[in-house]
Amino acid sequence: MTAENRKAVVLVSGGLDSTTCLAIAKREGFEVFALSFSYGQRHRAELKAARKVAEALGVKTHLVLEVPLGVIGGSALTSEIEVPKDVPPEVMQTQIPVTYVPARNTVFLSLALAWAETLHAADIFIGVNALDYSGYPDCRPEYIESFEKMANLALRECVEGRLRMRIHTPLLHMTKAQIVRKGVELGVDFSMTHSCYDPDPVDRACGRCDSCVLRRKGFAEAGIPDPTHYAP
Amino acid sequence: MTAENRKAVVLVSGGLDSTTCLAIAKREGFEVFALSFSYGQRHRAELKAARKVAEALGVKTHLVLEVPLGVIGGSALTSEIEVPKDVPPEVMQTQIPVTYVPARNTVFLSLALAWAETLHAADIFIGVNALDYSGYPDCRPEYIESFEKMANLALRECVEGRLRMRIHTPLLHMTKAQIVRKGVELGVDFSMTHSCYDPDPVDRACGRCDSCVLRRKGFAEAGIPDPTHYAP
Repeated sequence: MTAENRKAVVLVSGGLDSTTCLAIAKREGFEVFALSFSYGQRHRAELKAARKVAEALGVKTHLVLEVPLGVIGGSALTSEIEVPKDVPPEVMQTQIPVTYVPARNTVFLSLALAWAETLHAADIFIGVNALDYSGYPDCRPEYIESFEKMANLALRECVEGRLRMRIHTPLLHMTKAQIVRKGVELGVDFSMTHSCYDPDPVDRACGRCDSCVLRRKGFAEAGIPDPTHYAP
Repeated sequence: MTAENRKAVVLVSGGLDSTTCLAIAKREGFEVFALSFSYGQRHRAELKAARKVAEALGVKTHLVLEVPLGVIGGSALTSEIEVPKDVPPEVMQTQIPVTYVPARNTVFLSLALAWAETLHAADIFIGVNALDYSGYPDCRPEYIESFEKMANLALRECVEGRLRMRIHTPLLHMTKAQIVRKGVELGVDFSMTHSCYDPDPVDRACGRCDSCVLRRKGFAEAGIPDPTHYAP
């Protein structure tokens, strides 16, 4: 079955992964409804990048929802806990870091479900990755599979047989270098994306947080010049 | 294992079911963290009732989160679609009504998970009911079981073996009359609860929406005087 004229909700953070994920959904022929979240993350550079990316890649609609994860706390991304720097990638994968946000992907995917149902869209794309990643539990394949099962029991459209929800994770088993190459192949301009957890006041990347370290490694291993604006 | 000194997150809408559910959690000895949502529901009588109930039943904290379900739409409870009146209970259970809110319990439970993890609380209570109910898919036991499985794969505290999440649904197999009796037995003052989908400007219940019809039937069958303030 072709995706021509089928609607998909795509989660877009404005980072390298979600932007490539969005480009893949477009290439597969989906009409894309981009969804971003303002969740009390410490910097707004992410949301600015998400808006640029959504426009550049020609989505049908871009919805930005306010989500109160910052009120709940428990993460370096939504509170005053310090973002760790210069952690080697091989160490990252041995423990879940303080940048983990409790139930983040569950909350985001739940809101994506709500929107998908009102759009009569069966397809949701999320750019999670289980290889070059930070060890977050809600990026693992067993989590995504379980969420998809639950989704099909939760929604009226599914229970009444009109929709069969599918959570697409095209980046799940790709390395960061493969994601970079895929994005470039699909024409993504990565200079407009933002991955850094701790940018400077003019939104330049720190180059040293887990997200920057993985991103730099990805460009280096892909042999593609890194267009990121780093703080000096 | 006793629940003494164990924390539980309890979803509290201010209605008859969630209030009884909260009273049950308290009776089981949990330290209760009450969670309510402002989600663009057309009336605020619900939230007023939730605040009264949380205070009267002595919760540790009451958190009210803003959730953008109204922006997404798709329900008579969050948009201008008319709330149906005078539907007999036996007809209610043959179809999912327009008061269904897409993915509502999934979004609510996801935010409850986030809060539970930051509190190191393994227990979440939700007053869903699969007998005298309106046919919502996300009130069925198979949905709740599936959500619980997903939750245990989503959270850091679970994956690292410190928490085993449990979604408690003490009302799941009770009739409305049994819920009323249970609440009265536990000392709940139902006059402070609010169930109506379409109250008048001074928050009196319409007596005719699905929620009012089920509530009235519950009091009648329990043989307990109905303390609800109905519009004349």
